[in-house]
Amino acid sequence: MIRIVAQSVVKDDKREEYIQLAKELIEKSKQEQGCISYGLFQDINNPSIITFIEDWEDQNAIDLHNKTEHFKRIVPLFADLRVSKGDVNLYREV
Amino acid sequence: MIRIVAQSVVKDDKREEYIQLAKELIEKSKQEQGCISYGLFQDINNPSIITFIEDWEDQNAIDLHNKTEHFKRIVPLFADLRVSKGDVNLYREV
Repeated sequence: MIRIVAQSVVKDDKREEYIQLAKELIEKSKQEQGCISYGLFQDINNPSIITFIEDWEDQNAIDLHNKTEHFKRIVPLFADLRVSKGDVNLYREV
Repeated sequence: MIRIVAQSVVKDDKREEYIQLAKELIEKSKQEQGCISYGLFQDINNPSIITFIEDWEDQNAIDLHNKTEHFKRIVPLFADLRVSKGDVNLYREV
């Protein structure tokens, strides 16, 4: 299992747009083979920090995810809604 | 439910010590009331990045966790094992 934590700082006036796009991405991604879970989380102390936390069976599932229509269409749209490039970490449980 | 993501960059020669202490903290924390899950994750691309990801029922459970003997004893020991102060985010699912 690989857990992805992808944190972004989203522009204040773009937050609702970001969340709506993220929810579409999540809904479609959850239907993919190899997707164990895919959630969107907002920082309690700073609502501009919005983070995807995703569990995938293996790297192959992530590679296929990155080639889907919904990923290739929606993820580039996030760029203009963020304050800066996001931070992405891929983790294995210790 | 509140999800905590606590990311640290750990000194190379302190990594094993950090992981052993973290595992003791996790084992004891998982027995607490209100702890849904508590895991330790290592970045696939940078093994110095080590992150706790924890799910708690509510803020009260976190407040009680922060007062436990194991939390108050082990967490201060992490300070000397890190390159810098860690990043902690408390999240709610959107």
